[in-house]
Amino acid sequence: MRLAAFRRPSDEPGDRLTGLVLGQGEHLRIHPFAVDADLVVLLAQSRDRREQLADEAAAGDGLPLSDVVLLPPVYPTSMRDFLTFEAHVDGMERGHGAPGVPEDWYLAPIFLFMAPHAVTGPYDDVEMPPDTERLDFELELAAIVCRDVRNASPEEARDAIGGYCVMNDWSARDVQGREMKLKLGPSKGKDFATTIGPWVVTADELEGFRDADGFLDLPMTVSVNGVQVGADRSGHMGWSFEQLVQHASRASWVKAGEVLASGTCASGSLAESWGRTGSLTPPPLQVGDVVEMTVEHIGTIRNHVVSAASTAPPVPPARRRVATSA
Amino acid sequence: MRLAAFRRPSDEPGDRLTGLVLGQGEHLRIHPFAVDADLVVLLAQSRDRREQLADEAAAGDGLPLSDVVLLPPVYPTSMRDFLTFEAHVDGMERGHGAPGVPEDWYLAPIFLFMAPHAVTGPYDDVEMPPDTERLDFELELAAIVCRDVRNASPEEARDAIGGYCVMNDWSARDVQGREMKLKLGPSKGKDFATTIGPWVVTADELEGFRDADGFLDLPMTVSVNGVQVGADRSGHMGWSFEQLVQHASRASWVKAGEVLASGTCASGSLAESWGRTGSLTPPPLQVGDVVEMTVEHIGTIRNHVVSAASTAPPVPPARRRVATSA
Repeated sequence: MRLAAFRRPSDEPGDRLTGLVLGQGEHLRIHPFAVDADLVVLLAQSRDRREQLADEAAAGDGLPLSDVVLLPPVYPTSMRDFLTFEAHVDGMERGHGAPGVPEDWYLAPIFLFMAPHAVTGPYDDVEMPPDTERLDFELELAAIVCRDVRNASPEEARDAIGGYCVMNDWSARDVQGREMKLKLGPSKGKDFATTIGPWVVTADELEGFRDADGFLDLPMTVSVNGVQVGADRSGHMGWSFEQLVQHASRASWVKAGEVLASGTCASGSLAESWGRTGSLTPPPLQVGDVVEMTVEHIGTIRNHVVSAASTAPPVPPARRRVATSA
Repeated sequence: MRLAAFRRPSDEPGDRLTGLVLGQGEHLRIHPFAVDADLVVLLAQSRDRREQLADEAAAGDGLPLSDVVLLPPVYPTSMRDFLTFEAHVDGMERGHGAPGVPEDWYLAPIFLFMAPHAVTGPYDDVEMPPDTERLDFELELAAIVCRDVRNASPEEARDAIGGYCVMNDWSARDVQGREMKLKLGPSKGKDFATTIGPWVVTADELEGFRDADGFLDLPMTVSVNGVQVGADRSGHMGWSFEQLVQHASRASWVKAGEVLASGTCASGSLAESWGRTGSLTPPPLQVGDVVEMTVEHIGTIRNHVVSAASTAPPVPPARRRVATSA
């Protein structure tokens, strides 16, 4: 089952409906659920109850994509982005002059918390952030959590994952490069936009695509201006999504509405090519570029890079203590 | 004005009231606002309206601290923790073998997003997290945002700060040290507990404590088991809180209910001493220790370190690609 968040142009800007997605291509239709149906709550319901509500929605009129604005399927209560693709780590490390994947990477799946208010809809334009000449994308698969868990068992972790969507973790590589020298990870290099969508495919719908170890194994591709520049499979993750939930929830809350993302797959970013080749090929994203990402059996997100509508000046450099104590 | 979030032992576990804090020491009383008064909404109201509601609360009966459980003043919609104290950076860098503060630190205030669901109340026990033999504290001052801003001007940034509280960013140094080798910052090293409180002091109340550059300048101290181990002043931050809001909001949403923290002040963590001296002196926190932090004109938070009630086993190491492609 595919569940989308949307509004109609006639709705108020803050309005938000949940819809059942039926059909494909030009025959695709969004069938609204009852007005108060929350997407994360639907994910947490029993399969029987969810299908009953979906049957009711399907009985009503469907809207073509041209009549709606798709919204991010969830406004996350929190967002953890992991680093689970060995080959991506290898490429990035070589770009930093390291010999390859550090042994520490294999020990446990590290992550960083992301800007939850930066999520944007699956077809929304993305504004060029300030101070960057190296705008990049990151092709990821993301799980939507539908139940609160802490110290989750494998079974609890599995039940906590309501579904999956595609994610583009837009990144300003020069900005984050300067920030990461301070050892706390990226900050402004990633907090301007994270595209998620186009909808959530429920976990039950994807059961048939697990490999022998239980890893969800879906083909993933990314193109820039219609030319494919990266492709990988989610089965190449070092840990399953259930293991990511288990790890994240050790002595910590993972709550309904939280997004847990795979991290960038191999060849799923330009920076990985830059690291491997030592040159800016393919070139950084520019205003006017279109980035399209597809995870098979889930869907496609597509975004134009546009100029910023407004910017604010940078803050001044730090006030130095030496001045204070002089 | 001091505003606390609390519940009474007779309330349901999820209940949450807002109270006006009056008096000091044994005469301190929490005067409940109307049941539906939200602390962040109160911060966003005009001073006149807030004082009118406070007068109404003050006219009612007050509860002694022994009759309530203080809660985190806010369950953050998002949390950014900065790195603004030059002397702390200097100590930590020397611990890593670096010569001192990197020049990049002075350029702009970097931050990391924190675990919003990890906040705990001002007097709550803190469970020893798994896998650590180097539990530490971090003494910080935190601003509570009460208005949504993006590309904030200096005036908008000022209006967006509703008040301030004390914060202890508990940190498992050995865990985060392993994680930070992967360059994305700490993950499990910090997502188990962040203490905030004991209440919020409104920004208007602290206007008199700004220095000539407009930086809020309040003495900060931390003690372990009654012995003071660190002290600094918030005026030693490299940027003001208004500048932190401006920086965070450049091409990014900073929303009502978000917490922006100063980062660790000088001598505000054990790790800084460990870095400067090369030895584990003072020793890492142990079960039974009591950590107490005071920011003058705001208040004191106090927490016991206790054993974990339960733990979950670690996830296995990564599934290696080499095995897949063999």
